[in-house]
Amino acid sequence: MLTQSHLAHRTRNMGASAIREILKVVSRPGMISLAGGIPAPESFPMHILQDIIDTVIRKYGSRAFQYDLTEGFLPLREALVGYLAAKGIDAAADKILITSGSQGILDGLGKILITPGDRVAVEAPTYLGALQAFAPYAPRYVQIDTDDQGMRPDALEQALSTQSIKFVYLVANFQNPTGRTLPMQRRKAIADIIRRHDTLLLEDDPYGDLRYRGTPLSPINVLAPDQVVYISTLSKVLAPGLRIGFCLAPALIRRWLVLAKQGVDLHTSTFNQALAAEYLYGGHLDRHLPRIIALYRPRQHAMLEAMQRFFPSEFSWSRPDGGMFVWVQGPSGMDMKIVNQQAIARNVAFVPGTFFFARPGDGRETLRLNYTMADESTLYRAIKVLGDVFREAMTQIPDWRQAV
Amino acid sequence: MLTQSHLAHRTRNMGASAIREILKVVSRPGMISLAGGIPAPESFPMHILQDIIDTVIRKYGSRAFQYDLTEGFLPLREALVGYLAAKGIDAAADKILITSGSQGILDGLGKILITPGDRVAVEAPTYLGALQAFAPYAPRYVQIDTDDQGMRPDALEQALSTQSIKFVYLVANFQNPTGRTLPMQRRKAIADIIRRHDTLLLEDDPYGDLRYRGTPLSPINVLAPDQVVYISTLSKVLAPGLRIGFCLAPALIRRWLVLAKQGVDLHTSTFNQALAAEYLYGGHLDRHLPRIIALYRPRQHAMLEAMQRFFPSEFSWSRPDGGMFVWVQGPSGMDMKIVNQQAIARNVAFVPGTFFFARPGDGRETLRLNYTMADESTLYRAIKVLGDVFREAMTQIPDWRQAV
Repeated sequence: MLTQSHLAHRTRNMGASAIREILKVVSRPGMISLAGGIPAPESFPMHILQDIIDTVIRKYGSRAFQYDLTEGFLPLREALVGYLAAKGIDAAADKILITSGSQGILDGLGKILITPGDRVAVEAPTYLGALQAFAPYAPRYVQIDTDDQGMRPDALEQALSTQSIKFVYLVANFQNPTGRTLPMQRRKAIADIIRRHDTLLLEDDPYGDLRYRGTPLSPINVLAPDQVVYISTLSKVLAPGLRIGFCLAPALIRRWLVLAKQGVDLHTSTFNQALAAEYLYGGHLDRHLPRIIALYRPRQHAMLEAMQRFFPSEFSWSRPDGGMFVWVQGPSGMDMKIVNQQAIARNVAFVPGTFFFARPGDGRETLRLNYTMADESTLYRAIKVLGDVFREAMTQIPDWRQAV
Repeated sequence: MLTQSHLAHRTRNMGASAIREILKVVSRPGMISLAGGIPAPESFPMHILQDIIDTVIRKYGSRAFQYDLTEGFLPLREALVGYLAAKGIDAAADKILITSGSQGILDGLGKILITPGDRVAVEAPTYLGALQAFAPYAPRYVQIDTDDQGMRPDALEQALSTQSIKFVYLVANFQNPTGRTLPMQRRKAIADIIRRHDTLLLEDDPYGDLRYRGTPLSPINVLAPDQVVYISTLSKVLAPGLRIGFCLAPALIRRWLVLAKQGVDLHTSTFNQALAAEYLYGGHLDRHLPRIIALYRPRQHAMLEAMQRFFPSEFSWSRPDGGMFVWVQGPSGMDMKIVNQQAIARNVAFVPGTFFFARPGDGRETLRLNYTMADESTLYRAIKVLGDVFREAMTQIPDWRQAV
């Protein structure tokens, strides 16, 4: 009989994801889910994919189906040079690694960097998938305070001055879960801080291309290339089901990431890497990205308008310039885990914000809303229901006015 | 400046692969490589793939490009039920997990099972990729003796009786690197031993379908389903570049494997899983497998014939019933790492066998030959060269006759 005692000690750090359980519930028919974090299927370039597939088979033949380098399929790495250059990142193809989704880089970095007990600094709140990727390697998390402009440099400086921190993890553009973007001044301040403290920064940028207004900002990687691992993905601008992530890292990190990846999956699907290469080479991304933005921008707009109209005045929320999420703060005393159950009973679901905090119990009164998976009128209806649910929930907070 | 001190302690266990370095050298033009372990590109069903791609896009549409369950794409898991049933394995779809190559399962199993210092039993010699997958989790390896029929049950019994062993890893069919197959009697004996000792067995079966003669043998999983994780892949019978592995595991292991995989890559490429599903559903594997076998069997035959003709009588080797490798034992005193350099100088390369032993320094006089990547006449020429190199090397062994 196999029992828990057959498992490694590290599995203690690997709890089941509560979000996963929520996402299972909300897949039931009739539910309007604002809980997911996935691109709209109608954003996928299906009309282009068939062409790209033909090109790949014609151009690469059996090579697209053979084992390939752990570092990544060279034509894709070469295509990414131009893609990154457009962001101001000057990288040769041999500095770029391809992984199976950007999740693959987070796991690899956790594996090669974290000795059990090492401190890892993350935004409060942060991307849950990063917490999950690092968890098996048993870090201690240090939460860095954030505000409407993302991670606060003074809080980071304070943390790095008082503790030994292995690395800092952040999402600078349209963060998951908050939608917030670090302004240029903060990027400079953070680059300066990590340089001074000789610390490594993992800059995760899955959403940077999904900008609905304003001007793109330079990645922190550009400001401190020797200290920053830049991580991104084609999941949001091509298709997540192809599982193509990539990173740019200092040489030492890169060398070990390759060794780690060799043990994990040898390499990422050659065929899918070839598809991604042709998507970039053919100029398809440049032509298709405006369509994705034209799909999401009005959805975000509809959601924000409806929130303005239906959410109680005690609520506040982010107004992101891009990405997939809006972050909502309710009055203190509200427990959004309970409120979510009440919303689910009325066929609308979100993710309670507390799951995105490394410190258990933080952010009970917060929640994350996604607007990419429903059309405008559905979003409007869902937000109207949530407004009602919130109002009702507020009457259930004991002395909530006092609590505020 | 990033230095080694930024790395996790576990990276000490993750040395660079010597094989990887050999494989880089042998990719130079004019080299005949018997060093690789990869399928012939002409074994890929290119004529079928285009049809399958069309079917997948028509049948699944955008679903084939969307995020999917960590456990695996349901149509593929359902298709694998029939595939496994043909091997005598009775498994429901929800018992089957899909991973990014079978390497992904080895990493996941290492992560959820190995606490640093735990003992893991492996064949001597064993699959190098398994050693690499487990290494970051810092096991101590226990080598189990093998003979021409694979792992010796008495040696396994002895090891399990005297030490606490977390799990046993083996390849029962056409093992990498030896090509050896465990006969039925040994499978029964090993199933009995692991049941009695309440030990977990990882049965890795990447080559089972590549049988050139004789009757398929029942997997050990069938004999002890509650104690055996059965691991396989479509890399050798469809295409390795799609990175599709799968496993069947006891419920407890399965639950934790899913959690581990969520942190590593969320899920395996949906598109590639859909392609694999249609390859199985459409009966393509059944029709295509005989062609792969018709390609490899004469290659193996040509190599074995040439070895008989050209290798010195002091050499012995395996005569596998299938798979991709022949295992060669030279006279003791020979160091095949040095001999390989001499062979490479004459444009033929192999892998020194010592790399496949968990205990450093073992198997210096052994080597692995692959026959899937070259045609019959090329194999003949290469073996002739190796015969010459061996003969020459034997004259360089100081008093080699005494050493034998």
